Amino acid sequence: MIRLYDNLVSGNGYKVRLLLTQLGIPFELVQLEIVGPKRETRTPEFLARNPNGRIPCVRLEDGKHLWESNAIQWYFAEGSPLLPVDRLARAQVLQWMFFEQYSHEPYIAVVRAWHHFGLVEQNRAQLADRVERGYAALGVMESHLSSRRFFVAERYSIADIALYAYTHVADEGKFDLAAYPAVRAWLERVRAQPKHIPITQA
Amino acid sequence: MIRLYDNLVSGNGYKVRLLLTQLGIPFELVQLEIVGPKRETRTPEFLARNPNGRIPCVRLEDGKHLWESNAIQWYFAEGSPLLPVDRLARAQVLQWMFFEQYSHEPYIAVVRAWHHFGLVEQNRAQLADRVERGYAALGVMESHLSSRRFFVAERYSIADIALYAYTHVADEGKFDLAAYPAVRAWLERVRAQPKHIPITQA
Repeated sequence: MIRLYDNLVSGNGYKVRLLLTQLGIPFELVQLEIVGPKRETRTPEFLARNPNGRIPCVRLEDGKHLWESNAIQWYFAEGSPLLPVDRLARAQVLQWMFFEQYSHEPYIAVVRAWHHFGLVEQNRAQLADRVERGYAALGVMESHLSSRRFFVAERYSIADIALYAYTHVADEGKFDLAAYPAVRAWLERVRAQPKHIPITQA
Repeated sequence: MIRLYDNLVSGNGYKVRLLLTQLGIPFELVQLEIVGPKRETRTPEFLARNPNGRIPCVRLEDGKHLWESNAIQWYFAEGSPLLPVDRLARAQVLQWMFFEQYSHEPYIAVVRAWHHFGLVEQNRAQLADRVERGYAALGVMESHLSSRRFFVAERYSIADIALYAYTHVADEGKFDLAAYPAVRAWLERVRAQPKHIPITQA
């Protein structure tokens, strides 16, 4: 069976948990400590699985490992309805997943993590800038979704999962979605997909 | 003809210029100002092409636009020798491209940009942390390349282009590659590929 190294706080891990659940692929969950002195993602044993020392990381049936949440998503979604077959649509899925990792996650997910783990004070100097950039990412999403039901090809795909993961818990980082009605309506559409699970569920 | 909105300073743009050149795909280059008061990537006209306001962005033959350097790479490399056909190898290409955008570019490319555009002083508070994380990325690369010729499947691919783009100019951000011999040998292998062009060339 596939083994998923993960932590239930992680939105990046949630992408994989949600996708595998929706695809009906069973997996064993191994939760690791991801912060503090007992950080289990930087041990020699784990670094042999992922030299970048981060979850999520999957151990495939043949013992090989794959990491980076959106690369893992691509691997499992290939051939399923959650990854389009059209060449441009596939590149657009990647476009939005790279947007998520470069222009969204470092702001919305990181600020949420600072609140969750009590790290706001020690990062106070960077907070305003990160919040501003997080709202900029929400603005890009709002603009795109104002005339669309989903991010790519009007169909639910792994691009939606990638962006849903941290957007739907943005309030835990004190982001206010009141001014982003298209984003809020899209969150509801994602939540209404068959076999949806919450972030806290494996 | 394809039109590439770009700037010759950009390593992200260089990925696309290098790939299109190596694939023999002609393109028209449109250089835009990317910093300062004349920033041309945040005009209403450009935001209609890429709502995230960044280069590189390509205008395809049919007038549609695609952005995010590694998504653009994927689109053009599909079906070529620069993108493997094996399912796991394809996911590994994405794994390293997401690593590049999340754990490498925000440190190595951003510090280089601060030096290039005279922004080191105004970012002094963040400099040491960014430099440390840049070296951490180089360490992950060194570990992987110590037993491999290229990042995935022992073949030159768009994963190598993605990581070459800013690693080969890391010295412009005052990063010292002396302690990374496997990275330096790999840089030479990438530079030796047919139809290689320097970052300054369109």
